[in-house]
Amino acid sequence: MAAELESALSTLLSGSVKLSAAGRTDAGVHASGQVISFSTQRDFPFDRLAVALNSLLPNDISVREVAVVDPSFSARFSALDRTYVYLIHISPTPSALLRRYAYHVCGTLDLERLRAGAAVLLGRHDFRSFCGMLPGNGATVRTVQKIDVRQSSEILWLSMTADGFLHRMVRTIVGTLLEVAARRRESESLSAILAACDRQASGPTAPAHGLYLAGVRYAGFDSFKDPACVPQAAS
Amino acid sequence: MAAELESALSTLLSGSVKLSAAGRTDAGVHASGQVISFSTQRDFPFDRLAVALNSLLPNDISVREVAVVDPSFSARFSALDRTYVYLIHISPTPSALLRRYAYHVCGTLDLERLRAGAAVLLGRHDFRSFCGMLPGNGATVRTVQKIDVRQSSEILWLSMTADGFLHRMVRTIVGTLLEVAARRRESESLSAILAACDRQASGPTAPAHGLYLAGVRYAGFDSFKDPACVPQAAS
Repeated sequence: MAAELESALSTLLSGSVKLSAAGRTDAGVHASGQVISFSTQRDFPFDRLAVALNSLLPNDISVREVAVVDPSFSARFSALDRTYVYLIHISPTPSALLRRYAYHVCGTLDLERLRAGAAVLLGRHDFRSFCGMLPGNGATVRTVQKIDVRQSSEILWLSMTADGFLHRMVRTIVGTLLEVAARRRESESLSAILAACDRQASGPTAPAHGLYLAGVRYAGFDSFKDPACVPQAAS
Repeated sequence: MAAELESALSTLLSGSVKLSAAGRTDAGVHASGQVISFSTQRDFPFDRLAVALNSLLPNDISVREVAVVDPSFSARFSALDRTYVYLIHISPTPSALLRRYAYHVCGTLDLERLRAGAAVLLGRHDFRSFCGMLPGNGATVRTVQKIDVRQSSEILWLSMTADGFLHRMVRTIVGTLLEVAARRRESESLSAILAACDRQASGPTAPAHGLYLAGVRYAGFDSFKDPACVPQAAS
């Protein structure tokens, strides 16, 4: 994503452009609310930059909005918190329409158990047990402000808001909570998993294609856009 | 779709299988509620047929449910009515996530005008003006029982239920109603378009990728599955 955007921006602004991105999106992860920032000395009609960029970008990347901001703004470092959404398709059979956009799970899930497990993770903890690759500075303490779980027909919608996320943290938490929901782990085991500070203690990493960087919050601005933006008919 | 299913069924049931499909899905059109029927003399554990078929089918086709029915049942001829859903993404900029699943429209749409235009189409009419290729028997009278229009955030959801549909009928109706909603035609013009019995009188054919065969109703069974099955977070 960053490479394609940098290349399109460099073309339009005739000069090399370095991006700052708000949140990580590993291969296969979607983003509905990613925010990027960059500096340029060039003059450009910025109200037309989104359209110009979209004409150059591959069609699996789209720029939704462009704004001129204070030079001190950094998409990454000015972020107050980030929200990821994970979509799970619960059904005995897969859906051709959802196959790239939600993780298909057969069998029944106990949402009360899942919510109880999620509640253990709220607050400030060392999330090393849910971390794929350790960050450069080795700091693995993060504050999870909110975890929300909703089900509507066959879709389980799970959102998680934190000041920051470790590598594969959401996917490993989802993989572990799904084991809790499938009665293969106890909700209470989440405390022991956190305390272990060991990736071996937690569950499998849920696949990338169910995950969305849904929004980033700044002072005075929130980019949140629910990936589940398609309305329900049954109402 | 039919060819892939016939081939998978022929493999599993060791013998040529001919399908009957409830509704047309031209190239690029999705289906969330398609129904097919077939006859076989072979014995097969039918409770496992969906899983067996899905293991053979390409992953853009999935069988959601299999049932044994009365020999007189035909997915096509026993259908009482069909419902198509058309999804429109209204936004100044496209969405990478929705690009294959909703028709992207810039600019504002007047939904009151659109609904007024749609109301003219309700009931029994000759829909020849909205017909791409004439059916073999030349019969172009259909009864539209229901048209529903809802908007939720950036998505406009339009559903249409009728006893049957002509070639490209929904897409041509949507293309025409979008011109009404964009104030390029009057709602009342729909009466004159119907009366003209001429494809030249109506608007453009909306693209295939916004259209879904969403459900087919039979005596005692309805296959309806909303393609917009992903929940709304904002509630």
